[in-house]
Amino acid sequence: MVFATTPTPPYTAVIFTSLRTPGDHGYTTMSARMEKLAAAQPGYLGIESARTGEQGITVSYWVDEAAAAAWKQVAEHLLAQERGARVWYTDYRVRVATVTRDYGPAREDGHSPRPGRSH
Amino acid sequence: MVFATTPTPPYTAVIFTSLRTPGDHGYTTMSARMEKLAAAQPGYLGIESARTGEQGITVSYWVDEAAAAAWKQVAEHLLAQERGARVWYTDYRVRVATVTRDYGPAREDGHSPRPGRSH
Repeated sequence: MVFATTPTPPYTAVIFTSLRTPGDHGYTTMSARMEKLAAAQPGYLGIESARTGEQGITVSYWVDEAAAAAWKQVAEHLLAQERGARVWYTDYRVRVATVTRDYGPAREDGHSPRPGRSH
Repeated sequence: MVFATTPTPPYTAVIFTSLRTPGDHGYTTMSARMEKLAAAQPGYLGIESARTGEQGITVSYWVDEAAAAAWKQVAEHLLAQERGARVWYTDYRVRVATVTRDYGPAREDGHSPRPGRSH
């Protein structure tokens, strides 16, 4: 994983900050499966993830809040959430946000080029 | 760092995803200094950060977009940004977002309790 390729704002970011419990308990397998499953959902844009010790941050990007909400309700994802709260995570926060502005060093606006746009 | 203590939405999240260059080159000192300086700014709510190898995600939270924009323009932070683009980061993305909804396991809405609210 490097950077998610996201379009011109607005789009939706789901910021998931977590504290892991010790041990794997099937976490690695589930995590890989959920990334693959998320990527197959309508409106999925990309995912970015990092972990320092037990502290993890995963940001998933979606075309809109409806797409993010639909992903939350996918059956297999609901099971993972339930197991996450019970087994994998000591604590977590989910923040659903609307990205209004983005930029990076390469291009002033930081998103993928679109034909016909002039900057 | 654990979880940022954030109020009832809306508030602003600045998602900074980065790829580090090899070596420290003063990064650790600057990073600690910037966290301290950010925490002293008006409208600062908190920060969450994680890193896997060269890939880092830092999310800073602000009362509104104006507070986040003011922090971007603080003189010492401008110098750090300039040095970051030149020395510390191979690449990065900044995404400014409005958090519209949040939750966690402890309380359904995941934010700090406020007197007089009924949920």
